[in-house]
Amino acid sequence: MIKVGVNGYGVIGRRIADAVVLQPDMVLKGIAKVRADYKARLAKEKNYDLYAADDKSLKSFSEVGLNPKGVLNDLLEEVDVVVDATPGGIGAQNNPIYQKFNKKAIFEGGEKHALTGFSFVTQCNFNDAIGKRSIRVVSCNTTALCRVLNALDQGFKIKRARVVIVRRAADPDDTKRGPIDAVVLDPVALPSHHGPDVRTVLPNIDIVTMALKIPTTNMHLHSLIVSVKEKVNEDKVRDVLRNTTRILLLNSKEGIDSTAKVIDMAREIGRPRNDLYEVPVWEDSIKVVDDEIYFYIGVHQEAIVIPENMDAIRALIGGYSKEESIGITNKTLGIR
Amino acid sequence: MIKVGVNGYGVIGRRIADAVVLQPDMVLKGIAKVRADYKARLAKEKNYDLYAADDKSLKSFSEVGLNPKGVLNDLLEEVDVVVDATPGGIGAQNNPIYQKFNKKAIFEGGEKHALTGFSFVTQCNFNDAIGKRSIRVVSCNTTALCRVLNALDQGFKIKRARVVIVRRAADPDDTKRGPIDAVVLDPVALPSHHGPDVRTVLPNIDIVTMALKIPTTNMHLHSLIVSVKEKVNEDKVRDVLRNTTRILLLNSKEGIDSTAKVIDMAREIGRPRNDLYEVPVWEDSIKVVDDEIYFYIGVHQEAIVIPENMDAIRALIGGYSKEESIGITNKTLGIR
Repeated sequence: MIKVGVNGYGVIGRRIADAVVLQPDMVLKGIAKVRADYKARLAKEKNYDLYAADDKSLKSFSEVGLNPKGVLNDLLEEVDVVVDATPGGIGAQNNPIYQKFNKKAIFEGGEKHALTGFSFVTQCNFNDAIGKRSIRVVSCNTTALCRVLNALDQGFKIKRARVVIVRRAADPDDTKRGPIDAVVLDPVALPSHHGPDVRTVLPNIDIVTMALKIPTTNMHLHSLIVSVKEKVNEDKVRDVLRNTTRILLLNSKEGIDSTAKVIDMAREIGRPRNDLYEVPVWEDSIKVVDDEIYFYIGVHQEAIVIPENMDAIRALIGGYSKEESIGITNKTLGIR
Repeated sequence: MIKVGVNGYGVIGRRIADAVVLQPDMVLKGIAKVRADYKARLAKEKNYDLYAADDKSLKSFSEVGLNPKGVLNDLLEEVDVVVDATPGGIGAQNNPIYQKFNKKAIFEGGEKHALTGFSFVTQCNFNDAIGKRSIRVVSCNTTALCRVLNALDQGFKIKRARVVIVRRAADPDDTKRGPIDAVVLDPVALPSHHGPDVRTVLPNIDIVTMALKIPTTNMHLHSLIVSVKEKVNEDKVRDVLRNTTRILLLNSKEGIDSTAKVIDMAREIGRPRNDLYEVPVWEDSIKVVDDEIYFYIGVHQEAIVIPENMDAIRALIGGYSKEESIGITNKTLGIR
């Protein structure tokens, strides 16, 4: 059994902890957290071993009667792999601690590629990650683009991908952020950082991205314009995407014509916290004009990287093929 | 003096009426309206001659003491040109009435191209509109794209324009529509109708458009990817756009990084109802990658077609050059 600790218990950390519990080859040794809030209380109710991030944090836990088992350093003693799901940039500060304890570590997309020198998306580079000390699971948007573009590149050889990313401005539990009524150019200067981030995983893809921030919480939405070298039509694109794992073809004939409907469907199929691990692709949006493929994809920013984190744990430990890990992860998370 | 009547007094009709009053060569003979609401009362307070749309409507006006001068037919007797600013599709129903009265008529972008057989954007085809019986001023999105793409085509010869339109879902006074928290694919099937609509004005532009509806009220936002035949760089693009009338270069260094900030700027320069007649282009978003130009533009959906309507009136009556009409319209509306 792989012993896993999760440091950080926000949007991503909570989901990673729950997913680890579902893996037949892993055991969750505990979670570390800064604040003694409702999320800490609910983790305790799930019988997760709670650790405070540090001594100061430990005190605030004790004050509300949550009594953690110790601090982060105590958790690290117990684990083979730590998954760092702290806010962007904090992972880099934590890395020396993980190194001191000689632990394998996974970081999330809020950290820079240079922190580990290896950016991970299961379908693209599982084999290259095997046995590494630390890797970075890329951000939600990058994960989605890598899954989709990798499939199209293998099918048709991409000349250039152009993507307009319409970003949810805040997660559903994030009540501080705006905008309420605006489209924010994020950033104004083009291209956005997403293109280079995709190339940390797929270095040979020519990609240019633009990104806007809008008043919505439930999903990102990407408009893709991909020119390819090989002869292509709508059916071929559909077939390639249909045969790629963790991509879910949707059709608006079923009434799913918005991100809100996608999330409602995820609730309807009983996903925990309405999580959609797959990249939804509207198959009836797919249109080929000359050598260019046009279509829409959604990205459930809270959930899409969870399967990647499970696979990343196995890659670091070694002894699994890519197909084995995908098989176990998909089965436990209910990905068809 | 050109005698003008305005039928419909919603988002566009109100602005057209106010703009007509500002033109030195036009006189507003009155406005026709269905409902006796606050907009009707405020029009009366401006001393605009009020007409009811029909006899039924007349009665409801009288009931609240607004006492119109008559009905639409009475207004039509008084005018040289009627501008139909009724909801999309109603203009087509009204056209036979205008024909019966032998009046020149202008329709808005909610009507089909076939209704008049001529779709109008001042900078693109003023001269071809001179003396016609009726023309259609195209929609806000199409007007913006025509101004910008016409300029780029003249400067660099467009190979293909690809546009992702992020649409405001409702105007600020429209409290019925959604979505509140979703991105709606509008439509799912690609491409959207905007490309063909641009070609009603600029038939030789190769253009493919995608459109999303989002929870915002103040502006549309377009992401443009335009490949061109001639050698291009950022400075050349900036120069071409800077030298095109009714395009306004903005720079995020001044703090304008969202649609909300654009509208706030329009308020700050004293524009009536915060109207921005120009197409705002973020000059620091302009990026050239190989033969492709990437940039963002905004579209103030309530205001952008107002200058076009003034020019359209003059085109139908005749006797003005394009430059003369643009000069008068720009001066009266405060367009630099």
